[in-house]
Amino acid sequence: MKRRDVLAGFACVGAGAVLFSRQVHSEQSACASTGALGIIVERATGSLLIVDTIARTRIARVEGLGDLSHASAVFSRDARYVFVFGRDGGLSKVDLLSRTLAGRVVQAGNAIGGAISDDGRLVAVSNYEPGGVNVFDADTLAPLVEIAADVGGGKRSKTVGLVDAPGRRFVYTLYDAGEIWIADFAGWSGGPPAVTRFPGVGKQPYDGSITGDGRHYIAGLFGEDGLVQLDLWSDPIAPRRILDGYGRGEAPLPVYKMPHLEGWAEVAGAILLPAVGRHELLAIDAQTFGERGRVATHGQPIFAVAQPGSPNVWVNFAHPLNDTVQIVDVRTLKVVHTFKPGPAVLHLEFTPRGNEVWISVRDADRIDIHETRHFEKIGSLPAQKPSGIFFTSRAHRIGQ
Amino acid sequence: MKRRDVLAGFACVGAGAVLFSRQVHSEQSACASTGALGIIVERATGSLLIVDTIARTRIARVEGLGDLSHASAVFSRDARYVFVFGRDGGLSKVDLLSRTLAGRVVQAGNAIGGAISDDGRLVAVSNYEPGGVNVFDADTLAPLVEIAADVGGGKRSKTVGLVDAPGRRFVYTLYDAGEIWIADFAGWSGGPPAVTRFPGVGKQPYDGSITGDGRHYIAGLFGEDGLVQLDLWSDPIAPRRILDGYGRGEAPLPVYKMPHLEGWAEVAGAILLPAVGRHELLAIDAQTFGERGRVATHGQPIFAVAQPGSPNVWVNFAHPLNDTVQIVDVRTLKVVHTFKPGPAVLHLEFTPRGNEVWISVRDADRIDIHETRHFEKIGSLPAQKPSGIFFTSRAHRIGQ
Repeated sequence: MKRRDVLAGFACVGAGAVLFSRQVHSEQSACASTGALGIIVERATGSLLIVDTIARTRIARVEGLGDLSHASAVFSRDARYVFVFGRDGGLSKVDLLSRTLAGRVVQAGNAIGGAISDDGRLVAVSNYEPGGVNVFDADTLAPLVEIAADVGGGKRSKTVGLVDAPGRRFVYTLYDAGEIWIADFAGWSGGPPAVTRFPGVGKQPYDGSITGDGRHYIAGLFGEDGLVQLDLWSDPIAPRRILDGYGRGEAPLPVYKMPHLEGWAEVAGAILLPAVGRHELLAIDAQTFGERGRVATHGQPIFAVAQPGSPNVWVNFAHPLNDTVQIVDVRTLKVVHTFKPGPAVLHLEFTPRGNEVWISVRDADRIDIHETRHFEKIGSLPAQKPSGIFFTSRAHRIGQ
Repeated sequence: MKRRDVLAGFACVGAGAVLFSRQVHSEQSACASTGALGIIVERATGSLLIVDTIARTRIARVEGLGDLSHASAVFSRDARYVFVFGRDGGLSKVDLLSRTLAGRVVQAGNAIGGAISDDGRLVAVSNYEPGGVNVFDADTLAPLVEIAADVGGGKRSKTVGLVDAPGRRFVYTLYDAGEIWIADFAGWSGGPPAVTRFPGVGKQPYDGSITGDGRHYIAGLFGEDGLVQLDLWSDPIAPRRILDGYGRGEAPLPVYKMPHLEGWAEVAGAILLPAVGRHELLAIDAQTFGERGRVATHGQPIFAVAQPGSPNVWVNFAHPLNDTVQIVDVRTLKVVHTFKPGPAVLHLEFTPRGNEVWISVRDADRIDIHETRHFEKIGSLPAQKPSGIFFTSRAHRIGQ
């Protein structure tokens, strides 16, 4: 706590903030805008590192965020605050300027992620226990409404794959019920929001993602061999099964970790996505949603992330093959580069225009930074069991 | 000057900054990050308004930027600084936190725009007089190198359509020579950069634009009836003529104002672009670059800007029909809404996730703000002969 108090005192007055023995943060940056900042989740210690992606430095550690295993984050519209969703149901708000915990509420027993509305006013959290979605005021973290995801008999479903959609909407899946719901907060003034339900989309929709243009929501199924796609621009919206039976006739491998669908990358007219329980990426056409091809990979893909400004998608893998990153050219669906950053590569995040990428190597307690033209390593920073990396440029993206 | 000095004193210490008699800027915003800020060019007075797109307020005016007719702007990687390219050859750097002119250099006799490299270190300016491209250090504005665009006999060409491309490159057209050049600053350490020339692309390439994925550069021709496309991901890169003779057999109208190709919008797999000297938008397929269709419009289109997260493109028009905005659904190529903000609608800019749009109405000395779901006007701000509107979220985009 002491460190946070000290930092808060001069985070925004331009004095050099000495944060780590080896690192001094410059005056300009101490009072700078947050456009080149990011956070790194330190899962074991319940802390965040705030980093500067221009200086390639750590500028602060903020502690007291609870259980950050499987934590994710979204940013306020002005990119000053980051909302962190912890596995313990904690919703934490961190001020990147004062480098302090600006607010924290334990809003459920077990949470799996969240989203912020396009106007930046509403933060929604997706819960396993007791299920449903809770919505909070982004300024105060005051609870606004609880969407129970009641699927009958008072039973609530786990919700997953929660994303923001244009028009102050949230889209998410009901894992236990096999449904997709759209909650619409346009013109909302309290009470339950308008909810559109899509029942019977498939067994155990375990995650979902929205395309960068805000048009398509795609959910993966764990209980069946396929996916579901919704065109949010169509009226009425009709769920559509895609890639049905993509693994037909082949025994799936044990799934050590579920892939992260928010890693889905659209490049050169195709969307590359991890196949569940297979050493394979599936390429689907971004217009027709038919299969375009497949890529045999080193292991079970977890994230497939597009390098901005290039045909390349970078892929990391599930345990026990998680020491490796592969780069795939989406035009040819060929692996163009493979390297081994180290033990337990959990996440990667590109600088906004794609010239550099940050990679968390959890079991080496390290963040590696690579340039993306020749894939060379250009820097490294210490971090405590780092997992998710999130840069503030996400604040301006649909489906951040 | 006095006002700027006063503002600088407390721009970042959290005190309320009283800027206009009717407007007080809140403590939080006074020390906030710049993620929700933007600038509005006041062309006649050589000044900028700094605005807050969340509060929908003006928070400062910065003066002394010279001739800002046809001015454009790009942002530093941390979104703290904006570089403004004036018609008089002036390159001005404004600090959005201290709200002061941080630097200014008159680098040519007549300039037409500029770009910032993907790593944020280099600012390039495109010049009419004496021609060529000048490159500056983004931190200090020190001149680094002059690319003469010498097309033989010591004659320099006007350069236009200058954009940043991934890999620390700049792409631009030589208006007088009918060429496209790519200047590559990867690994550059002083002296002339590596330049790739594409001669004979067509007569008078008058502007150019890069797609959001950094893949395609498209230049419009004024001296011929067609466009040129380059796939920057291909090796070697080969210029390709597209939409040749799109106006064949029809007498062009007098061109009151050249369309702005940086307004090009890719939506639903198509790129919508203004036809030169015609009351028409051309739709080209974003994969094949063949023609997909046309849209008859109210006047000669100037900007065709995609509303993020929607199928809609908003269009403004050249004098004398420039009191009108039309909205086109790219899926159907139909006009879905038409309205008249007022005299001389010069530019429009969307909030990053598309929920609102700001429109400059020059001859009404006004900025109008509309929500984008029902297109209703939700606010208005006074401005002196406003033209270009630029929000800081551009800092994180390719081809900003």
